[in-house]
Amino acid sequence: MNITLEAASNALRAYLKAFVTFSDEEWGELAKEMTLRPMPKKYVFVRFGEVSNTVGFVLAGSLRQYYITPEGDELTTYFFFEGALVGGYMSFIGKKPSLVCIETMESVEILTFPYSTLEALYDRYHGWERFGRKLAEYLGLGLEERLLEHLMYSPEERYERLVKSHRTKILERVPQQYIASYLGITPVSLSRIRARV
Amino acid sequence: MNITLEAASNALRAYLKAFVTFSDEEWGELAKEMTLRPMPKKYVFVRFGEVSNTVGFVLAGSLRQYYITPEGDELTTYFFFEGALVGGYMSFIGKKPSLVCIETMESVEILTFPYSTLEALYDRYHGWERFGRKLAEYLGLGLEERLLEHLMYSPEERYERLVKSHRTKILERVPQQYIASYLGITPVSLSRIRARV
Repeated sequence: MNITLEAASNALRAYLKAFVTFSDEEWGELAKEMTLRPMPKKYVFVRFGEVSNTVGFVLAGSLRQYYITPEGDELTTYFFFEGALVGGYMSFIGKKPSLVCIETMESVEILTFPYSTLEALYDRYHGWERFGRKLAEYLGLGLEERLLEHLMYSPEERYERLVKSHRTKILERVPQQYIASYLGITPVSLSRIRARV
Repeated sequence: MNITLEAASNALRAYLKAFVTFSDEEWGELAKEMTLRPMPKKYVFVRFGEVSNTVGFVLAGSLRQYYITPEGDELTTYFFFEGALVGGYMSFIGKKPSLVCIETMESVEILTFPYSTLEALYDRYHGWERFGRKLAEYLGLGLEERLLEHLMYSPEERYERLVKSHRTKILERVPQQYIASYLGITPVSLSRIRARV
């Protein structure tokens, strides 16, 4: 992929317009801390047990987020594709060791900046503070939806909702065992559901 | 209960210090929109399908939040006691009909103000915007924890965590069928767990 840092920064700025429109000054304060980073497949972007400080914006490729259960198993809880913000958000805001791992599923091109820069901008600019509020609210809505899906829907309904929300990307690009884990079922049950649907 | 509006407002201001310390001017803008409201038991504070605009701060009594499942059953997802903020938060921020009901479990004394006032203050004061960010982040952490509990723990472990987090209030003041619903189990299973623990 041959995207320049400037083009990547502009892509992120356009994406964030859904939350806040920044002045050139406000944007410049974050843009000067941005870096373009390629990552190979299976690269650990956020490590379990470490306090995270890197926010990413996915330009190409995909990642997944997972927990380690008390039994030592991986439990996949989220997928990230092109155009998504990614990071150990709960670790950032709580300043606590991350409970999750985030790992690439494909080779990834990503734009990164330090969370500490963002936090300093929250203090200095009302506009950045607003972005922080809207981002947190947006993530809260997503978590609420995920919780509801687990409480209210069957694995089959959850599968249909997952496919609908991500179109075909999920089925084409994500290994079966991760999708099964995300749905809270075994790979065998997933095969059965896919055969039926 | 004989609390004055001023004392209730001061109690809320002290509680919110965990998020932001407000100037008298910033606080006064919200305080002048506050009302004290008594509510009887089984009063519906947030109604399913309506866009919510009332935020509450519980002074006495308790409430529960529940969803209506596709099968028409009530699914209890949260309890509120003295000292808690309560409202149809996801309805506020999405400006969408509420997916939840919030109903009193006991007679309740509550301090209320309009969400639209809070939102107008987000625009006018950086300090209020910061409060909005921190509140959203705090609620996000709580949702993440709830989701993890459902994904990672057994009903028995969830019961122990619930008791620990709310001390004895839950067991003394909340009807059994709501606790069972919250844990995602039947009242009979809950009785068995309580006999064992």
